[in-house]
Amino acid sequence: MSESTYTVKGMTCGHCVSSVKEEVGAVAGVRDVDVDLTTGRLTVRTAEPVPVERISAAVVEAGYELVA
Amino acid sequence: MSESTYTVKGMTCGHCVSSVKEEVGAVAGVRDVDVDLTTGRLTVRTAEPVPVERISAAVVEAGYELVA
Repeated sequence: MSESTYTVKGMTCGHCVSSVKEEVGAVAGVRDVDVDLTTGRLTVRTAEPVPVERISAAVVEAGYELVA
Repeated sequence: MSESTYTVKGMTCGHCVSSVKEEVGAVAGVRDVDVDLTTGRLTVRTAEPVPVERISAAVVEAGYELVA
């Protein structure tokens, strides 16, 4: 179990949060996802190593941008 | 100032740590980099939003892999 944290740019409402949670949560190896709308903070817990590009692609799929 | 955390795969010694610190520290917008050899934990503090792909590319440049 490993935890990583990022910032998501562009979220404005609860629907944005739900979209990010859904897309990132669907990535293989991801166990748990927390999203904070105010700060944009994204916390991802994984059961196995997941390439960061897959997390980024899921955030883009949801319509937002993943930044360091 | 924003902080993000990741895991770097493949580091085996202090030289690996130095390489990752140097490459990630050279990314535009990155202020500070911490690397823990034992856990592989990479902590990046940025002065402005930096696309995650640039952090990943810097880790690859150093010879390792960035995972969630």
